Amino acid sequence: MAYTAVDLIEHKRDGGKLSGDAIDWLIRAYTDGGVADYQMAAMAMAIMWQGLDDEELGAWTSAMLHSGDVLDFSDIGLPKIDKHSTGGVGDKISIPLAPLVAACGVAVPMMSGRGLGHTGGTLDKLESIPGFNPRIDQSTFRAILEEHNLVLAGQSGTIAPADRKLYSLRDSTGTVPSIPLISSSIMSKKLAEGLDGLVLDVKTGSGAFMKDLESSRSLARTMVRIGERHEVSTVALVTSMEQPLGNEVGNANEIRESVDVLRGEGPNDVTELTLALGEVMLELAGVDGGRERLEIAISSGSGLAKLMEVARAHGGDPSVLEDTSLLDVAPHEATVEAGESGYVTRCDALTIGAAATRLGAGRERTDDEVDHGVGVTLLAKIGDRVERGNPLARVRYRDETLWESQKARLESAWTIAAHGHHAPDLVIERIDRTTL
Amino acid sequence: MAYTAVDLIEHKRDGGKLSGDAIDWLIRAYTDGGVADYQMAAMAMAIMWQGLDDEELGAWTSAMLHSGDVLDFSDIGLPKIDKHSTGGVGDKISIPLAPLVAACGVAVPMMSGRGLGHTGGTLDKLESIPGFNPRIDQSTFRAILEEHNLVLAGQSGTIAPADRKLYSLRDSTGTVPSIPLISSSIMSKKLAEGLDGLVLDVKTGSGAFMKDLESSRSLARTMVRIGERHEVSTVALVTSMEQPLGNEVGNANEIRESVDVLRGEGPNDVTELTLALGEVMLELAGVDGGRERLEIAISSGSGLAKLMEVARAHGGDPSVLEDTSLLDVAPHEATVEAGESGYVTRCDALTIGAAATRLGAGRERTDDEVDHGVGVTLLAKIGDRVERGNPLARVRYRDETLWESQKARLESAWTIAAHGHHAPDLVIERIDRTTL
Repeated sequence: MAYTAVDLIEHKRDGGKLSGDAIDWLIRAYTDGGVADYQMAAMAMAIMWQGLDDEELGAWTSAMLHSGDVLDFSDIGLPKIDKHSTGGVGDKISIPLAPLVAACGVAVPMMSGRGLGHTGGTLDKLESIPGFNPRIDQSTFRAILEEHNLVLAGQSGTIAPADRKLYSLRDSTGTVPSIPLISSSIMSKKLAEGLDGLVLDVKTGSGAFMKDLESSRSLARTMVRIGERHEVSTVALVTSMEQPLGNEVGNANEIRESVDVLRGEGPNDVTELTLALGEVMLELAGVDGGRERLEIAISSGSGLAKLMEVARAHGGDPSVLEDTSLLDVAPHEATVEAGESGYVTRCDALTIGAAATRLGAGRERTDDEVDHGVGVTLLAKIGDRVERGNPLARVRYRDETLWESQKARLESAWTIAAHGHHAPDLVIERIDRTTL
Repeated sequence: MAYTAVDLIEHKRDGGKLSGDAIDWLIRAYTDGGVADYQMAAMAMAIMWQGLDDEELGAWTSAMLHSGDVLDFSDIGLPKIDKHSTGGVGDKISIPLAPLVAACGVAVPMMSGRGLGHTGGTLDKLESIPGFNPRIDQSTFRAILEEHNLVLAGQSGTIAPADRKLYSLRDSTGTVPSIPLISSSIMSKKLAEGLDGLVLDVKTGSGAFMKDLESSRSLARTMVRIGERHEVSTVALVTSMEQPLGNEVGNANEIRESVDVLRGEGPNDVTELTLALGEVMLELAGVDGGRERLEIAISSGSGLAKLMEVARAHGGDPSVLEDTSLLDVAPHEATVEAGESGYVTRCDALTIGAAATRLGAGRERTDDEVDHGVGVTLLAKIGDRVERGNPLARVRYRDETLWESQKARLESAWTIAAHGHHAPDLVIERIDRTTL
């Protein structure tokens, strides 16, 4: 059947349902250039307006997923499980998590992204390891995975090219925050990895993409439904992103903290979330007693050893993981101090993430370079008692003018009150096929 | 203030109101190419979704209007009044109307469009007059207007270029049927003509762009508000477009019928609507007793003389207006016959318009050529009694295969029933500043 972009846009705009064939045609034609960017932009806005139902979303995701290579690791005997996070501030979880799970005998073919806006990206953090090269071809990807149960690669250009094209279009057309478009974007890439199971860490709160629990929950449910429709067991944990995860925000900073977790010396929240997500990954792999196994992988050092061997496989210098003082550190240090005494009731992830990005730890545009040595070390988080003048954070920066421009913003991230309260629960809800 | 397209799209998408400055910036940047087509496409869809309020719409129209030349005929002493129709089938009203009004001492600086889809365009019809050239420069436009009180030109490329660009974008992005976008498109062009008054013929029904009375009324109201906000007295008549206007559909056909009207021999509906719209144009010009004056311009032949002199001024051969049998006629003739006896209860404008277009009288794409000699002459309209086998229409066509492909479609335009009813009232409602 012959379709035209205008007919499909009008149909969606008027609240109609797009057939699977029509969606296949649209995504293929968009990838090939037969459907113009301006037509897809109008379609994306029409989808923000009218949504996509489960069937449309399944077809949309499939079409994007099949726009490029679909990996097949069925010849690798181990269960293949990955984790994806919707992104937060200080979210370095992948870095301790993936090697711990791999050390427990599960294959983790992880593809990560770069940071954008106020959130960091796993790839940027990994590149703090000198020589680490996440840009590898498919045969190298497979070879590293086969040898180590783990590969930590960047998104390949041959995976879901339709998503790559659409993602950059959405970014410049105000069509990013649409649950169907977000979920199909994430899932099309993840489902191309040839996985048996997928764990989603869906952040909620000030530092998350989704600020309120209801939309985070809805995004999580949508992605779980897409995964199950594609026969990949999918579990989502909705987790809090009011304050940064852990004490470190920045690239080398977060590698340092990840190593701490792998040594059993990490902050409680990062360790706890790593174990919670790892437990679900092992559950999806059919491995019993997951938490205990993960704790053993920490105490035995097998998780850290795994990260070091995989870093080496990616061309990285593992010695910085043995001695994290060798990691890059920006030359200047400043301290943010408490303006009054009391309890920290707010330690705002968005504000801290945005300030760290602006200082150089992240990128505001996709072609910005990140500065691996820039970072913020949090010394007081929600629930902590502080006295006036106590340090709230230590900042490492390279550029004095930038620091002057971000100082007030960073200071504004904390609220100190006479009465304290606990930090919000980290894991808020589990969503899987039984709870849909 | 610095704006970005993404911020403005997001603001509109989320139901926000755009400031006048923001709209100015957006339209200017779009015209210059600083805002991309894909961004404007997303904005157009966001406007379809969230609308524009009166203030935004006023600013949007102004910005488009000021994207190009704004004509100034204030040195011409006569009141300058134009008419615009939202387009219908058999709608040749401008052709008898403009010369009649001009013959009554009002200046009519008319700029018309070409046909697209099932509706014809005044320019295509005028070009049935051999040699008629509607593409004239501004100084010729002014010279013809000064000499004859009337000019019948095509849309100049220097008038509202932002609208030209946006209109073609909307056409390919499913963002045509938006009342704010339609009304600002029409009004930005009309308000650039340096008018004192404007009469809008807003069609409603099957053959109209707006199929239902409520949307037609809303479009009419919106345009009247924009006109008044720009200090141009604006009156809209909402008129019926269930069946074609008059008996002729096609280019030379409609010139022939227009001349009939100017000779006092036109069909009732075309004559009546011409007089109704002309009366309002004269009212806006401050001329009393308008209908009587128009009737005199018919009976005295001054209207036809005006059309002939203006046709000559545009390089056209006026002899075809004196003897309309000299107009182009396609070589083949066919007849559509009544399949049963009874009363015509439906004579569908959309179906007849679409068939005539496909036969060559109109264009489906903007770069199609029209065939001036192709046309449909209606012999039975709503309310008429017909016997089985009576001719419902006579068709002039050039291409046998095309005719075979359109025969059944054209036949399907009529419904004949045992009990008849009258044709709907032609002028349904008048909307002006007093009725807003």
